[in-house]
Amino acid sequence: MPNRPVLDFWYEFASPYSCLSALRIEKLAEEAGVTLRWRPFLLGPIFAAQGWNTSPFALYPSKGRYMWRDTARRGRRQGVAIVKPENFPQNSLTAARLALAGRDGGWTPAFSKALFQAHFCEGRNMAEEAVLSAALKEAGSDPNVAIPLSRSEEVKGRLRAEIEYAKSIGIFGAPFFVAGDGELFWGDDRLEEALEWATEGR
Amino acid sequence: MPNRPVLDFWYEFASPYSCLSALRIEKLAEEAGVTLRWRPFLLGPIFAAQGWNTSPFALYPSKGRYMWRDTARRGRRQGVAIVKPENFPQNSLTAARLALAGRDGGWTPAFSKALFQAHFCEGRNMAEEAVLSAALKEAGSDPNVAIPLSRSEEVKGRLRAEIEYAKSIGIFGAPFFVAGDGELFWGDDRLEEALEWATEGR
Repeated sequence: MPNRPVLDFWYEFASPYSCLSALRIEKLAEEAGVTLRWRPFLLGPIFAAQGWNTSPFALYPSKGRYMWRDTARRGRRQGVAIVKPENFPQNSLTAARLALAGRDGGWTPAFSKALFQAHFCEGRNMAEEAVLSAALKEAGSDPNVAIPLSRSEEVKGRLRAEIEYAKSIGIFGAPFFVAGDGELFWGDDRLEEALEWATEGR
Repeated sequence: MPNRPVLDFWYEFASPYSCLSALRIEKLAEEAGVTLRWRPFLLGPIFAAQGWNTSPFALYPSKGRYMWRDTARRGRRQGVAIVKPENFPQNSLTAARLALAGRDGGWTPAFSKALFQAHFCEGRNMAEEAVLSAALKEAGSDPNVAIPLSRSEEVKGRLRAEIEYAKSIGIFGAPFFVAGDGELFWGDDRLEEALEWATEGR
């Protein structure tokens, strides 16, 4: 059997466009015959290196207003109702560590989808342990195991390494899709193009 | 005859994504039965209000590198070879004034397309009078009339008013498409959605 093409899906839990991708990427990848690698990371350190202390959607009001309008329109097209959480952006550190902790157990995708839905469709606070625990349970993971694991030095180091790697290959936002040959695609609206590239090249 | 829907096309001559839109928008608008209003403006004053002294593609190197790759890919799909001009971004003040000067004579679209092509497909310097004159001639306009007109107080004021208006409705980048009901769409990749909205609403 020939090797299946691979696509890396880099996402940030505080990113509404990452949410839109997370909720639709699996079906599209399956149809395209592409294997996905879910790669949660944090934009905070990357933004900080650019001199931003928060999301550009918070720094630049017109950009923020437009983003909520645009994600609502795009969400509607895919049957997802995006709501603006009360605080935005929220701290996504624990969420990202948990998602990385799920890599070996295979529950990263299910946890990520459940958390995105709680955060951007139900407006829940993703830094709250109750919200994280509910998403873990929905993904078939035991919070009493997963939460301590997410606090281990190993998982913390894994996240730092992922962020460094993301920065080193030129990632500056989310979501990003990276094809097997290193080709970069930024934004939920490039998902189809990225899958096409992954399977056929240019 | 019922009124045709109208779409405002806000563009900046130093914006590669504006170039991609300018070179494909007329055919799509015609097919959709939408009347276009070409509205050249400057992003410089809008960026300055956000604390940026140049294009974000120049301020943030990864973003800039990605943009040239992305516009090359998108250009290829529409049969346009995008090249990075030697200096980027270039001063687009005279270009924008000229484009506004062409509103009454009706040559704004033809001039804009010719100049975008010279700048982003042939790498010419759009601040040079020879390049501007060639684009004017291609659009059937006499440079000896158009250039002095572009320096008139009336045209200068027209451009300032356009920039103020753009800012007031929440425009923060280019291209932007604005439907008759005020709905905003940002980026060449939203052109189809904007035309659909203009004709059907949401």
